[in-house]
Amino acid sequence: MSGREFFTARTLAEVLSGFRPVHRTPAEDVPLSAALHRVPVADIPAPAALPGFARSTVDGFAVRAADTYGASDGLPSYLDLLGAVRMGAEPTVAVRPGGCVAMPTGGVLPAGADAVVMVEYTAETMPGTIEVTRPVAPGGGIVRADDDIAAGAPLVPGGRPLRAPDLGFLAAAGVTSVAVHARPRVAIISTGDEVVPPETVNLAPGQVRDATASALAGLVVDAGGEPIIAGIVPDEPGALKERLAAVVAESDLVVVSAGSSVGARDETAGAVAAIGQIWCHGIAIKPGKPTLLAECSGIPIIGLPGNPLSALVVFGQVGVPLLWRVAGCEYAPPQPSTRARLSRDLPSAAGRLDVVQVRVRDGVAEPLFGPSALLSVLTRADGYLIIPEPATGLDAGTDVEVVLYR
Amino acid sequence: MSGREFFTARTLAEVLSGFRPVHRTPAEDVPLSAALHRVPVADIPAPAALPGFARSTVDGFAVRAADTYGASDGLPSYLDLLGAVRMGAEPTVAVRPGGCVAMPTGGVLPAGADAVVMVEYTAETMPGTIEVTRPVAPGGGIVRADDDIAAGAPLVPGGRPLRAPDLGFLAAAGVTSVAVHARPRVAIISTGDEVVPPETVNLAPGQVRDATASALAGLVVDAGGEPIIAGIVPDEPGALKERLAAVVAESDLVVVSAGSSVGARDETAGAVAAIGQIWCHGIAIKPGKPTLLAECSGIPIIGLPGNPLSALVVFGQVGVPLLWRVAGCEYAPPQPSTRARLSRDLPSAAGRLDVVQVRVRDGVAEPLFGPSALLSVLTRADGYLIIPEPATGLDAGTDVEVVLYR
Repeated sequence: MSGREFFTARTLAEVLSGFRPVHRTPAEDVPLSAALHRVPVADIPAPAALPGFARSTVDGFAVRAADTYGASDGLPSYLDLLGAVRMGAEPTVAVRPGGCVAMPTGGVLPAGADAVVMVEYTAETMPGTIEVTRPVAPGGGIVRADDDIAAGAPLVPGGRPLRAPDLGFLAAAGVTSVAVHARPRVAIISTGDEVVPPETVNLAPGQVRDATASALAGLVVDAGGEPIIAGIVPDEPGALKERLAAVVAESDLVVVSAGSSVGARDETAGAVAAIGQIWCHGIAIKPGKPTLLAECSGIPIIGLPGNPLSALVVFGQVGVPLLWRVAGCEYAPPQPSTRARLSRDLPSAAGRLDVVQVRVRDGVAEPLFGPSALLSVLTRADGYLIIPEPATGLDAGTDVEVVLYR
Repeated sequence: MSGREFFTARTLAEVLSGFRPVHRTPAEDVPLSAALHRVPVADIPAPAALPGFARSTVDGFAVRAADTYGASDGLPSYLDLLGAVRMGAEPTVAVRPGGCVAMPTGGVLPAGADAVVMVEYTAETMPGTIEVTRPVAPGGGIVRADDDIAAGAPLVPGGRPLRAPDLGFLAAAGVTSVAVHARPRVAIISTGDEVVPPETVNLAPGQVRDATASALAGLVVDAGGEPIIAGIVPDEPGALKERLAAVVAESDLVVVSAGSSVGARDETAGAVAAIGQIWCHGIAIKPGKPTLLAECSGIPIIGLPGNPLSALVVFGQVGVPLLWRVAGCEYAPPQPSTRARLSRDLPSAAGRLDVVQVRVRDGVAEPLFGPSALLSVLTRADGYLIIPEPATGLDAGTDVEVVLYR
């Protein structure tokens, strides 16, 4: 790097543990149908026990377990069939010693019964008499009224994005609205005199369409945020500062895809310093070293490197964890990944974290190279692998974890 | 299983390769901002080459490479500084032999130049003269006009859900609207006299709120579909058939969470057979054996087991791949997963695929058991592991892949 820049390169781990802007999005109530992957602001307690009544888990006959002790094919127990439980209805008959009641799976256990014997181990040899050929223990073939959850116990934890199965548990408990963190609004500012909107049909010489904003918007959505495309700012003194001041007031996280030249980077640093406090300028990561982190009234601001590949790599490593934190996530959502065998040696410098784009075919991860200015590398890649700071490289044949683009 | 049921149990692999309803969702145009994870109906070609002009990838000086041959710290090349290229603008000066032009990263290469030497290997020792201390090869420090992509070549492939980086590449090419498959509409029908809507505040004895529909809706969204909650059908002859006939006309995939009792399952099979062709009834999977697959005019119909855990397992293994196929996916989207060490022996029966819910802590996968009627197992689980058909179990300590709930 040139001496014209001021760098205090931090490791990624230092960044993630040390840079902790306090802002969190406020709570809002959403219906269950819109709650997938939203983050509850606190544990959600069960309003009542579930299933709420002792319930059969099999088709069969409700019995007093003691009446089946010692039953076998050679010496069955014979029980009087006293009636049947209907699904979704209260039993109209109790089980007395020597009696049984026909049960559907999911039916309410009648009074007097403490188990359900499976239909497979019974036969109605005479009308009104059930032959039981296998004993059942008390509690067998049933779940008790609070086996799923006791009243007041947490159905789902706060701080963990809601998963599809969680929605089922909440529905079962009658919780149809949940208090969750608002989706973080992530303002994406692009800079550069050469950058024009994607809608531009005919490019003038030297112009490029803004690729980074659209790709970042996709990463923001994947991480649970709401992207706000905040436009393209020309390389003019004051222009970026003005735009930053405007968007920071209406955002939960601000991302600037900085100009790629040294001058443009200096411009970004100046504008950010004017409205907030710079926390670091430079991260020991490749690609992505000239990354800037700052905060303004608790709102994180990320100055990304100019070229799209570096910008996306840094946003994935730094921006996504920050976004999760702003959204109240206390548990990182799981990311798609796969194990693969590295196809060739990969050199790296100790002290620097390398993010290497790879293509995965038949369990082999093949690194993709080329100038990081090229976007095609990112669409040809299936994901990336990480060479951690202490390593000086990875040998061909190493078993690596590839984080997959989803 | 009881002899009352008709089962032709197929393996999961047989189901996925053999059950191939032909329906696919139609194409629709969506703006780039709504295209994340949507499936292009065909390859999307580049309207023009990218970047579209030869471009500097570094800050430095555009040169004729031959003018730098042999340059070193001891014997620099001295070049006349002829001018500077401005970002986003056409060069106003060409490079002649013995000359150079100042370049920002991303600037247009001026006529006459075939390389850019990095600023780090230069010094302006006298005003107007640039000293070059390292040679550069032709093509060094630049990308050519079609290095990213040639005109007409595919920017992204058809049949693969669009990822965040793809959106950037499309934006760079000026493609702001893409033809994608419509999101599959997945009708979710619940059945059972005991089942009431989640909104029900006070349950009558024996009633349970519908957990499965909400959880399935979440899985549908995760898989790229649009869930349609098609209500709860009582266990009455004809009621399910009527509802099925109504929803199949407006859906791309139909899911019935069948009643859990034997009678209710027979009822489902009868209703499905009345409107379509049953392909199989019974899959060699645990939990989830009493699964029914059918089609009606090319629309897949899945009859899921009655209890929520089994229903979600089967939908994940069978429904999600079917949903992807209906959506035109030719590449399965990657799923989150992790490697872990199994905490205990897990028995299984050969010939049956077992899906075991696990909790993962510190790299150890701990299987969760309990009646599959319990929903809490699903919210306590971090994911599941699979014991394939040929295996008779897994030993404690085995390195297993856990598919994570996201």
